[in-house]
Amino acid sequence: MNEVIELLMERKSIRAYEEREIPQEIRERILESAIRAPTAGNMVLYSILEVEDQGIKDRLVETCDNQPMIARAPLVLIFLADFRKWMDYFEVCDVRVINEMKGIEGYKPGAGDFMLCVSDALIAAQNAVVAAESMGVGSCYIGDIMENYEIHRELFDLPDYTFPVGLLCFGYPTESQLRRPLTTRFPRESVVFKDRYRRLDRKEFHRMYSEMDERVFKGKYLEGCNNIGQHYYKRKVTSDFMAEMNRSVATAIKLWCGEPQY
Amino acid sequence: MNEVIELLMERKSIRAYEEREIPQEIRERILESAIRAPTAGNMVLYSILEVEDQGIKDRLVETCDNQPMIARAPLVLIFLADFRKWMDYFEVCDVRVINEMKGIEGYKPGAGDFMLCVSDALIAAQNAVVAAESMGVGSCYIGDIMENYEIHRELFDLPDYTFPVGLLCFGYPTESQLRRPLTTRFPRESVVFKDRYRRLDRKEFHRMYSEMDERVFKGKYLEGCNNIGQHYYKRKVTSDFMAEMNRSVATAIKLWCGEPQY
Repeated sequence: MNEVIELLMERKSIRAYEEREIPQEIRERILESAIRAPTAGNMVLYSILEVEDQGIKDRLVETCDNQPMIARAPLVLIFLADFRKWMDYFEVCDVRVINEMKGIEGYKPGAGDFMLCVSDALIAAQNAVVAAESMGVGSCYIGDIMENYEIHRELFDLPDYTFPVGLLCFGYPTESQLRRPLTTRFPRESVVFKDRYRRLDRKEFHRMYSEMDERVFKGKYLEGCNNIGQHYYKRKVTSDFMAEMNRSVATAIKLWCGEPQY
Repeated sequence: MNEVIELLMERKSIRAYEEREIPQEIRERILESAIRAPTAGNMVLYSILEVEDQGIKDRLVETCDNQPMIARAPLVLIFLADFRKWMDYFEVCDVRVINEMKGIEGYKPGAGDFMLCVSDALIAAQNAVVAAESMGVGSCYIGDIMENYEIHRELFDLPDYTFPVGLLCFGYPTESQLRRPLTTRFPRESVVFKDRYRRLDRKEFHRMYSEMDERVFKGKYLEGCNNIGQHYYKRKVTSDFMAEMNRSVATAIKLWCGEPQY
């Protein structure tokens, strides 16, 4: 196993940080590694917000489902799906000649553009995670940045055709975070399928969740729950934050794609 | 610069492969590294299809905008956003008791679930890319897997609440691919903003695209185009494949989220 694989296999999310700044040089390496990530058609369909303003960090704690670590992270990056930049550039480049050539009225970004931008943003984010890890800087994704779209639009001056798809907190791990064991993952046969998708049966599900059950839950589920499925269903899937995320993302997609043409 | 950063900074997409299998052990390391990637709430909201059937690879060449390298890649992985597995598991776990407890009728996945699944899938995909690279295996993303949703559903037996968001081709790079210089990237100041989003002005756009113009285009744009904006607008944005991707993704999101509730 080489050093890179070792890093990928041992990386865990870090949610508590030492009170210690991340030197500018290391911040820059993280950002440069993100920017070198593969990007669709080399179009770089994303932007990164480097959040330094403590007031904004404090506000994010509230808008991202009350996660105080955001306020304490020495480096906070928001990865934006961004087609606005190209739309503005097309204006600068006067693409009306192409519209005339093709006999079209203009271009309105759609769900495909949205997803290409989202892909670029997340691929770059994971490069930032790996780069940070290699320099001893821990990280944690906050998907809750997809909630409260309207508030984040205002907070970050986000124009149409931008969408904050991921937030990453970075910092040096505390001792106790370093000692925390790796979380379990599902066995490969429940994640990887040959050639075609295959729905799992009851027995396979039992195997899939057994290690998590033994190592993490040990029979202790949320009140009123008797298994992992009920636990997650109660705690996450039917939670208020999930309802908010569903609403927020649907609103953002609608604004991006216009009235659904389908 | 450590070895990991060096790898991230020097990685480029590889589109032509030596005729040489990837040993099973290396395939497994790639998959394991993907599966260790961070995942929302440790829910592993994705699946990976390992495509080995040559007939399916050949078909993908056509359905992914005619890219013959898919047929020639010794390893093809499709990353699926997947909430189906959890929905099936909830059924096995009999979550009706939670519905009664919460006074709800049941749960219908929404746009938030879709995006969490998409995020998990892409983050895992990038881990696979980095892992492969560290073992001398090149890779290339094919976003076109998001086109032709209906065809891919049938081809891969995809049930509701799954969506193929990324395809990765892997293989040992040919000599000429190894010699190919790194593509340019936009300068950091046009990708990273402090605290708030900022739209770029004409002068900034000029700086942003100048290296790409000098090194890549050298004044040679698509017929009828006079600058990079017009070139990309004609070649990519207003292309048939982009129209198809917009249609396909919109269809998939509609099926996943139901009639928009917004």
